[in-house]
Amino acid sequence: MINYIKEDEWSIIEEGFDQSHILASESIFSIGNGKFGQRANFEEDYSGEHLYGNYISGIYYPDRTKVGWWKKGYPEYFAKTVNCPAWGGIRFEVNGELLDLNRCKKVNHFSRELNMKEGWYRRDFTVELQNGIQLQVSSIRFISMAMEQLGALKYTLTPLNQAVTLQVIPNIKHDTKNKDSNWNEPFTEDLDTSIEKNHILHHSRVLKSDFQICTFNSTQFQMNGNGFELEGEPLTNDSIAGISYKIEVEQNSSLSVITFGGYTNSVDFPEQNLKNIALHTLIKAESYGFDALLKQHVSEWETIWKNSDIKIHGDVSAQQAIRFNIFHLNQTYTGKHANLNVGPKGFTGEKYGGVTYWDTEAYCLPFYLGTKSKSVAKNLLRYRYNQLDKAIENASKLGFKSGAALYPMVTANGEECHNEWEITFEEIHRNSAIAFAIKKYIEYTNDEGHMAEMGLEVLIGICRFWAQRASFSTHLNLYVILGVTGPNEYENNVDNNWYTNYSARWCLRYTREVIEKMSKEDSENHERICQKTGISKTEINQWETIENQMYLPYSSDLSLYIQHDGFLNKELIPASQIPVDQRPINQNWSWDRILRSPYIKQADLLQGFYFFEDDFTTEELKRHFDFYENFTVHESSLSPCIHCIESVRLDYLDQAYTYFLQTARLDLNDYNKEVHEGLHVTSMAGTWMSLIEGFAGVRIIDGKLSLAPKIPDKWTSYSFHLNFRERLIYVDVSHEKTKLVLLEGKEVSVLLDNTTHFLST
Amino acid sequence: MINYIKEDEWSIIEEGFDQSHILASESIFSIGNGKFGQRANFEEDYSGEHLYGNYISGIYYPDRTKVGWWKKGYPEYFAKTVNCPAWGGIRFEVNGELLDLNRCKKVNHFSRELNMKEGWYRRDFTVELQNGIQLQVSSIRFISMAMEQLGALKYTLTPLNQAVTLQVIPNIKHDTKNKDSNWNEPFTEDLDTSIEKNHILHHSRVLKSDFQICTFNSTQFQMNGNGFELEGEPLTNDSIAGISYKIEVEQNSSLSVITFGGYTNSVDFPEQNLKNIALHTLIKAESYGFDALLKQHVSEWETIWKNSDIKIHGDVSAQQAIRFNIFHLNQTYTGKHANLNVGPKGFTGEKYGGVTYWDTEAYCLPFYLGTKSKSVAKNLLRYRYNQLDKAIENASKLGFKSGAALYPMVTANGEECHNEWEITFEEIHRNSAIAFAIKKYIEYTNDEGHMAEMGLEVLIGICRFWAQRASFSTHLNLYVILGVTGPNEYENNVDNNWYTNYSARWCLRYTREVIEKMSKEDSENHERICQKTGISKTEINQWETIENQMYLPYSSDLSLYIQHDGFLNKELIPASQIPVDQRPINQNWSWDRILRSPYIKQADLLQGFYFFEDDFTTEELKRHFDFYENFTVHESSLSPCIHCIESVRLDYLDQAYTYFLQTARLDLNDYNKEVHEGLHVTSMAGTWMSLIEGFAGVRIIDGKLSLAPKIPDKWTSYSFHLNFRERLIYVDVSHEKTKLVLLEGKEVSVLLDNTTHFLST
Repeated sequence: MINYIKEDEWSIIEEGFDQSHILASESIFSIGNGKFGQRANFEEDYSGEHLYGNYISGIYYPDRTKVGWWKKGYPEYFAKTVNCPAWGGIRFEVNGELLDLNRCKKVNHFSRELNMKEGWYRRDFTVELQNGIQLQVSSIRFISMAMEQLGALKYTLTPLNQAVTLQVIPNIKHDTKNKDSNWNEPFTEDLDTSIEKNHILHHSRVLKSDFQICTFNSTQFQMNGNGFELEGEPLTNDSIAGISYKIEVEQNSSLSVITFGGYTNSVDFPEQNLKNIALHTLIKAESYGFDALLKQHVSEWETIWKNSDIKIHGDVSAQQAIRFNIFHLNQTYTGKHANLNVGPKGFTGEKYGGVTYWDTEAYCLPFYLGTKSKSVAKNLLRYRYNQLDKAIENASKLGFKSGAALYPMVTANGEECHNEWEITFEEIHRNSAIAFAIKKYIEYTNDEGHMAEMGLEVLIGICRFWAQRASFSTHLNLYVILGVTGPNEYENNVDNNWYTNYSARWCLRYTREVIEKMSKEDSENHERICQKTGISKTEINQWETIENQMYLPYSSDLSLYIQHDGFLNKELIPASQIPVDQRPINQNWSWDRILRSPYIKQADLLQGFYFFEDDFTTEELKRHFDFYENFTVHESSLSPCIHCIESVRLDYLDQAYTYFLQTARLDLNDYNKEVHEGLHVTSMAGTWMSLIEGFAGVRIIDGKLSLAPKIPDKWTSYSFHLNFRERLIYVDVSHEKTKLVLLEGKEVSVLLDNTTHFLST
Repeated sequence: MINYIKEDEWSIIEEGFDQSHILASESIFSIGNGKFGQRANFEEDYSGEHLYGNYISGIYYPDRTKVGWWKKGYPEYFAKTVNCPAWGGIRFEVNGELLDLNRCKKVNHFSRELNMKEGWYRRDFTVELQNGIQLQVSSIRFISMAMEQLGALKYTLTPLNQAVTLQVIPNIKHDTKNKDSNWNEPFTEDLDTSIEKNHILHHSRVLKSDFQICTFNSTQFQMNGNGFELEGEPLTNDSIAGISYKIEVEQNSSLSVITFGGYTNSVDFPEQNLKNIALHTLIKAESYGFDALLKQHVSEWETIWKNSDIKIHGDVSAQQAIRFNIFHLNQTYTGKHANLNVGPKGFTGEKYGGVTYWDTEAYCLPFYLGTKSKSVAKNLLRYRYNQLDKAIENASKLGFKSGAALYPMVTANGEECHNEWEITFEEIHRNSAIAFAIKKYIEYTNDEGHMAEMGLEVLIGICRFWAQRASFSTHLNLYVILGVTGPNEYENNVDNNWYTNYSARWCLRYTREVIEKMSKEDSENHERICQKTGISKTEINQWETIENQMYLPYSSDLSLYIQHDGFLNKELIPASQIPVDQRPINQNWSWDRILRSPYIKQADLLQGFYFFEDDFTTEELKRHFDFYENFTVHESSLSPCIHCIESVRLDYLDQAYTYFLQTARLDLNDYNKEVHEGLHVTSMAGTWMSLIEGFAGVRIIDGKLSLAPKIPDKWTSYSFHLNFRERLIYVDVSHEKTKLVLLEGKEVSVLLDNTTHFLST
């Protein structure tokens, strides 16, 4: 666990130069705009340990699969978001000495700030070089929320103890490489570089997937705030494409280097236009200037926060954390493009490759539903609808037939691309989350037309998969689902994972009901979809049979559903008895020991109690929560949020608060010892759920927004806005009462009395 | 299935030139001498599809592990037997045209013969080149059973339609590469090459493991059988190190190129002596000459066959096959070195990497016990004894303690080196086979001293593993073994695999009995071993508790032990209903589908009924065999032999005969469609077991050799020798009676009456 981040309501602040924090801070201070983003690498050269990282959403390399022993059905590749050329490097030589914080004499007054309110990242320090020269440096940068292709930075340098001669080389670093690469192969090749005046355009191609990228960069100079022109010399080599400028700077004078940069890519534009549009973007940026661009950007963030901010009073740590989570979710996905999705690490790192996991439907959807116009969530659903054919293809590669769809565990384009059979083939519960998201979306937005437009076809594909995947056990006289991995990945290839079976049964039932309803209320679409999918009454009857005879492991001794067949045969020693120095177990125990243990990586059966909470009484939830809680080690970032929400429901408020901090500050405090690899972006939506669905108890019940607000002791109050059916609702919860203000100004108060309050909107 | 091999009692014969058979024949016609060996590559250049393969036993490269997602406890590397420089290449240019059967005009009268009786491989053909020249070629080669480092070949070429000018380049091909490589990295580097007179010495180093190899080659010439001297020119390039000779050959004159070659390596000799010993070997070979060396080699084979031949009358196909199996087993392992073992593909291919699997103890040991002096089998046991420390280290990497030993699934030096968690960590039943081999060895050889000398320490390590690996289920009130893979690798991570639990229980019981016996009969060694291992009464009592409370899955409805928990929930459709075009299922079904199916790759529960046959009545065997037989697809080469032996016991003689051919002709007929990758050498020992333990019913009962002979209808008789306690016993079984002749000439006849006959020796 780390705790070097200073608490602040609106900013993430690091003070002091500690090189052991470089990788972690590169992740934490990442910035992006949904289209592209970057880790918080230094602009100047840095020879210490670091991970250069610039990523464009949707630009991936199909990295040939790596497995110990190839078996039939394995995906051909693992899609990796490409670590692109870095648009904003600046090399400084000061009287001939390279500015490099790893090789200088001394660094003082080092600080970083990520200003979440305004969406910029700033770094300040003074440095004494080996040659005795002292410099003060201040840099600020942002990736524009207003101009999708553009980033900008202003790097100001002041010699403190003498005049200096600077060699300044703004550059595009094009020897960047994915760290997470299966075969240590290059993912990209350079096509060409053109440097004209102050403009650098670097054209490259992603191998195999054939995406093209134009990385661009231009530079302006100011001395003590006053712009001036300068002629530079092109300087290119194997590592950078830059322009070298020579500048004399007086003692105590401040040179500012302003760089505009970013990317155009062939998904968004025709290949032949990439360079033109890049140049056009640069010229536009130059004409606006840094300050105007920043202002525009800040104003975009103002709008974002208006719809999505959560205020917590009385707990700066929680306040900072919830905003950090909301900030990164907004940076990662804006919902403008139906071909993009919410990558598990956003633009902050490479681990997990791919882009789209079940995280999107299971954890992220509520956030985008609650804080954005419905078109954003709808784009997430459209993403899966557009990939239905690929899901059918994925299933057919495994031997399924007749339109059965298995959505991928990991994908960039709809094709499955994970490296492990126990996940790829077996963690099939993802299909249910995708079905459930359709229900959730329609319920929340009231977009009833979505079902005929897209939803039902997806549901039918998913149900066909479940119907074929379930098999009849003559021994049990019931349908079983064998050989699966549940959400708890610390068990593989188990039979009858309760969550999987339960959710599969739900899919079959829900889809049947939808079809029946549509046949009565919208016979035209019903007929169209029946024809398109070839669904028949016989097939639906078969679904009903499976649904009614689905086996769910249950212990009557314990009055408990059992996570999967055989779980009770394990040595059921509570996780609290694992010595602290052996946690997290996945970094300390062999995989074999983990598999045999009763320890649950993340909510599994309890994930089902979250999704399908209406099916269970509070008493039932309590019994199952109290049992499974004992064995849950929360070594997935996606776990504490579910336990938080359920703790609130059970009135375990202290525990809920602990879980809340665990999810909210997961990366800020590096609970899982892996923040250096990037942030857990999708789990950040779980933090939002913890507060909105957990503490505030927001639900849709019978089409109405309802609330069952509670508040942790430590907080004096908390408040938030919620977009519900395109109206902004304001909720303010304190210990005495809950105030709801509809946007029109009508104020309603409800009591914190443990009951559900329906809001009429 | 292929059937191009001509049936013959003593030879493997291919007639006709079919390039689609090249890879298969390279495997089938492989030769070796236990120390090194080679695939049947052409001596001359060949540009068609082929796999150059020369392998030295014990010389491996630690190929960095390839897995989809690294988890704690994974082995660092997979040991791969190095594909070494090829010692015996000869390049021919005939009037300037390269002799290459892939590029010539016509090949006629092509034939190969592997003479198993004398241990040589011969190839004959005539060829018409593009330039119209017709040649007759005959080559014969062998790898000397008398001189461990030496191979020899004689290549005779006769121009048929005109005199020719030959460029003859005997060479060492040193750009050979392992096909089975994880990262496409080179496994070796060349150090230096020296060519002096007719001697080529090529010195190379295996990367990482640092073994050094000297490959050597020398050439003599004969014209029409008369030796002559010739001066050549060294010719080396990136691919070969050779000597180029120019020779005029008259029409119908025969030029013979005689090459001696082979390897010295740094496991056998000090590095600095490798070249000297190589040179010495060459000079010795040259002075003997090809014919004398061949004679010496043939005489070694005569001795081998005297002890191990099996004669089958009335069935040439079976006769050829059984000898093919015995031949390759002798080529692969001679038992001279305790650091070597029986690789699953011997010197015939690269698949499976590594060297030592549980195949050695479970399948190969009986063959070497029955056909060799006991020192050979003892060396196999010594191999594991010498690696006990590594086995303890393997277990400790997984979290086991206090001397618990987990022998590796695959190894070259005692360290685990497999790429898949579901095998490496979970296929732990191998430990039992290693324990059982100790019992079997002592029983067969009466070498009682072995237990104190080596056996008990191994047993204690294994029992400690089982005692820690079993866990107590409060639910069942019994000990369980969770998360394993049984011999049936078409199921992974199952609970309570019957075979694993049963054999673990056996280990605990047997070891307890051994310790008790030793404490009474040999207190000195008992005390020494107790002290050395730190074993205590408490620990042994704990073993007894586990042994007495071991859970064995059982269905009282079916009166059957169940392969593992949950097996009965599968769709129990007999394998006979799988469409033929979907077999083998591992080449046609996704892994996911296989895992969920009831199909058993190889004898699993029935493997236990084989090892522990005395524990079960014939009636019990019949019940279990009849049930599990339905689901067994025999897609491991190690399966049919067990089913054969059990079929004989159940008097299913027709079925037994079918299984016998399936194991005996597995590679000759390529039943599993993979002979191009190499032969299934370890399963060849299963063929031997099928006849000796199957049809002949050989057992040791109460320390006596016993026999329960049966004979398939098709055979008129079969006979074999058996080394039992260093005496050679001769058994001759015909339909009327069984004749046993002790070596001293005393003749005994016993009836084929379905009872067991004890032989007093």
